Amino acid sequence: MTTLVRNAWYVAAWSSEVDDQLRRFTILGDAVLLYRRGDGHVVALEDRCPHRQLPLSMGKRIGDAVQCGYHGLTFGPDGKCTRVPGQDKIPPSAYVEAYRVVEKNDIIWIWMGEAHRADPDTIFDLPQFHEPGWHAHQGDALFLKSNYLNVAENLVDPAHVSFVHPTTLGNSASENVPVHVSTDGPAITAWRWIRDAEPIGFFKAFGGFEGNVDRWHYYHLYAPSIAVIDFGSAETAAGIAEEDRDSGNRIFALHFMTPVSETETIDRWMHLRNTAIETEEASERIDAMFRVAFGEDKEILEAVHAEEQRPAKRRPIRLAIDRGPMVYRKRITEMLERERTEDVSAEPNGAFVYHD
Amino acid sequence: MTTLVRNAWYVAAWSSEVDDQLRRFTILGDAVLLYRRGDGHVVALEDRCPHRQLPLSMGKRIGDAVQCGYHGLTFGPDGKCTRVPGQDKIPPSAYVEAYRVVEKNDIIWIWMGEAHRADPDTIFDLPQFHEPGWHAHQGDALFLKSNYLNVAENLVDPAHVSFVHPTTLGNSASENVPVHVSTDGPAITAWRWIRDAEPIGFFKAFGGFEGNVDRWHYYHLYAPSIAVIDFGSAETAAGIAEEDRDSGNRIFALHFMTPVSETETIDRWMHLRNTAIETEEASERIDAMFRVAFGEDKEILEAVHAEEQRPAKRRPIRLAIDRGPMVYRKRITEMLERERTEDVSAEPNGAFVYHD
Amino acid sequence: MTTLVRNAWYVAAWSSEVDDQLRRFTILGDAVLLYRRGDGHVVALEDRCPHRQLPLSMGKRIGDAVQCGYHGLTFGPDGKCTRVPGQDKIPPSAYVEAYRVVEKNDIIWIWMGEAHRADPDTIFDLPQFHEPGWHAHQGDALFLKSNYLNVAENLVDPAHVSFVHPTTLGNSASENVPVHVSTDGPAITAWRWIRDAEPIGFFKAFGGFEGNVDRWHYYHLYAPSIAVIDFGSAETAAGIAEEDRDSGNRIFALHFMTPVSETETIDRWMHLRNTAIETEEASERIDAMFRVAFGEDKEILEAVHAEEQRPAKRRPIRLAIDRGPMVYRKRITEMLERERTEDVSAEPNGAFVYHD
Repeated sequence: MTTLVRNAWYVAAWSSEVDDQLRRFTILGDAVLLYRRGDGHVVALEDRCPHRQLPLSMGKRIGDAVQCGYHGLTFGPDGKCTRVPGQDKIPPSAYVEAYRVVEKNDIIWIWMGEAHRADPDTIFDLPQFHEPGWHAHQGDALFLKSNYLNVAENLVDPAHVSFVHPTTLGNSASENVPVHVSTDGPAITAWRWIRDAEPIGFFKAFGGFEGNVDRWHYYHLYAPSIAVIDFGSAETAAGIAEEDRDSGNRIFALHFMTPVSETETIDRWMHLRNTAIETEEASERIDAMFRVAFGEDKEILEAVHAEEQRPAKRRPIRLAIDRGPMVYRKRITEMLERERTEDVSAEPNGAFVYHD
Repeated sequence: MTTLVRNAWYVAAWSSEVDDQLRRFTILGDAVLLYRRGDGHVVALEDRCPHRQLPLSMGKRIGDAVQCGYHGLTFGPDGKCTRVPGQDKIPPSAYVEAYRVVEKNDIIWIWMGEAHRADPDTIFDLPQFHEPGWHAHQGDALFLKSNYLNVAENLVDPAHVSFVHPTTLGNSASENVPVHVSTDGPAITAWRWIRDAEPIGFFKAFGGFEGNVDRWHYYHLYAPSIAVIDFGSAETAAGIAEEDRDSGNRIFALHFMTPVSETETIDRWMHLRNTAIETEEASERIDAMFRVAFGEDKEILEAVHAEEQRPAKRRPIRLAIDRGPMVYRKRITEMLERERTEDVSAEPNGAFVYHD
Repeated sequence: MTTLVRNAWYVAAWSSEVDDQLRRFTILGDAVLLYRRGDGHVVALEDRCPHRQLPLSMGKRIGDAVQCGYHGLTFGPDGKCTRVPGQDKIPPSAYVEAYRVVEKNDIIWIWMGEAHRADPDTIFDLPQFHEPGWHAHQGDALFLKSNYLNVAENLVDPAHVSFVHPTTLGNSASENVPVHVSTDGPAITAWRWIRDAEPIGFFKAFGGFEGNVDRWHYYHLYAPSIAVIDFGSAETAAGIAEEDRDSGNRIFALHFMTPVSETETIDRWMHLRNTAIETEEASERIDAMFRVAFGEDKEILEAVHAEEQRPAKRRPIRLAIDRGPMVYRKRITEMLERERTEDVSAEPNGAFVYHD
């Protein structure tokens, strides 16, 4: 049975990944052709000619249309065939699927599910994308040979940090600080504050802290596949309240996980910050820190995925630390069940409301 | 369900590919050992010892026989075991299948089907192999990661030429010239004449044409897997009739497609010509032209095959240009059905009669 | 249906392959973590955390225990979980399987079957391991892409030697000497004596023979996967009796075949000798000779295995020379049937009694 939720907005690509060339992406197991029209709008088509199945990405652009490289069938940006060489009449079955695409915050979002459920207002956003004093920076498109559920689950799982990232994201100060978990909102959230501790390296360099700080980590996971990690520091002396995090040095790490197939995932990650916002060196430093840390995750998650493919005599056990992941898996199961049974009374999946 | 027709003569190899060494070929999914006896005749045996299954091609020649490399069982050119080291009596089950082989026109033909249906008189031939004034030249054994039906279909499909071979086999002059299709004879034939046009490069260099020419293309496809492409040019001023093509500069390109398995094909191609027959440079020039063009086909056909392995929500559509391919597929289906049901009243497949 | 017998002692590794590092081995399809405790004892654990399935071999040592690299669950050498970070109570399902391990003669033996059937007294031994005047030397861990039955069968099959090893282990002198087979004891034994013949190269160099010798070969195969090959030479003039082989120059080649999976086997081979026992050069010479010969076997056995995976129209035939292999396969079938049906009245498999 599939683990892939179709009625959701997924990140197809960073805006910079798509231009006037015909490029093939694989999303939820489907091959998708992405390119920009002359006016810059992004087109997303099923990447397979309905005639002899050649990927259209192997064809060529004719204006805003695409001509198949085998027999010249030509398809407009809406997927409809506009020319069949050798015959005048174009049969109604001569079309390719056209996917709904929205470009927002330099990100190309795609809807692979039932067209009538696609609501652009539910696409992920953060207020900080639009506020002054914030700098957004796109990181990598990290490929993982793992089902996306493992990747997502890992992002609402603070318990792994001390063991997987002992020298990058974690340190010994956090090991015994309790984690709070909330599953009331649209996101599953795990968080903790480490009070009155030495700042981590990044904040020492760019935060200008001289004394001890209060440090926070909030992990928000939106099913099916978006995670917002909110972390930062403020001088302990300032004694800021939990809801005043913007007054500290704050960074959002965003993870947009796009299932390539049941066994592969691309995690596009980026970050926003309210500190050192005019220094590109700070972006590079965060990138470098994350590359090491997410490489550590990748190694673990790919090994877990490989092990899950081997025969098992027992079911995996779940622990107290799994509360976030367990609720996440339950939400996915419900989404899949709604899609499997076509419950027309259900709310559309993928609605996004960010609660700070 | 298999797509492989067994009751037909297939090209196992060019004559030059087989010598006194033990060589393994895979044909219709079966491993076949080919070698020449001392008298030059070609032997084709099942390449698997009936005892412990070692390929006989890993053993060695003992005169005209083959000795298995594991326990020394020895098999004659007829496949019968002649020696079992360690025992005097040779059990009747100690044999390997011996395939019927015919060498003709420097080509080794093999029959992989029911032995009683193999009729050497039905092996492909062209009168031009035996007439003076013609030069035959063998090209390559082109491997394609594609089911053979895609490869064969492509050879009775003139519509692809303008899109796949815009700079090699096709040019803009032909784009709007109608194609005729005949499915009455043993071959499915598609053809067209381009009248009063500039000669293509090859005929300019070797045909000695100074003015415009009439150019023809005939695609004959014999199910299951032989294609004859007859093309050439004659001075427009000469006004030759369709049946007088020999009086022009004429080339036959032959394709012998041998299914390696359901997913792999070897296309052995060669050509015959009545022009520049004493110039080996002309052979090389045709080879070079074909290598580029068939490389273009290979790229398309392998992509189509790969795409056919992916899940599909819709059936492929068929167009007016597919008349030849559709009849071809229908003929294959009938051949397979005859083999599947053992209809003993049926005509043997693979009968070859060339009609000019 | 599996071909893997579980209720037997297998060689997990040479003693030298295991140290204080966490190392992953695959045995009978199961991933096994091997390491040495501080006191040198070998620990063998299921190499998969019961929580999120990460291989424990990717974690780290905490004293004699192992800490999972994902969430820090810690397991003692007995497989029991001793720590779950984030919760005080350790659930009873938090354990990994601990396999019974015995180290003997510098070999690590493992029991992958039902624990209550594991009897260390049935582990393979040879008196010559413990007698003065003998030198033991471990060779390689030879990986074969073949089911272990093919590998084992080959070791009670003297008939292949003349064809697979014509220039290494065999020579023409042996071709017509009859082979005796006995299937009465715990081992299946095939043997022959070649009387009054020239010594083979090794015995010429290290045996000090000047005239002709009597040469013997005994192949003992213990199901499921241990072979003892006893070969040697004595001066023909001495006229030694079969039971006095120790008075000649005698070598034992031992093969411990460990199925990695249904399709892969590791053959760990070693040898003991009563000649040139103080010369390491003699060990190297035997190693070199065996490496060539076992490389010849590997090539054959992998080809046989590959061919067995292809479709077949006929069943393999069995010959007079297959008596040993056939009895071996029958014993394996009986062992598997006992395991499949849980016949509690049955004797444990794997009992080892060496009869010279």
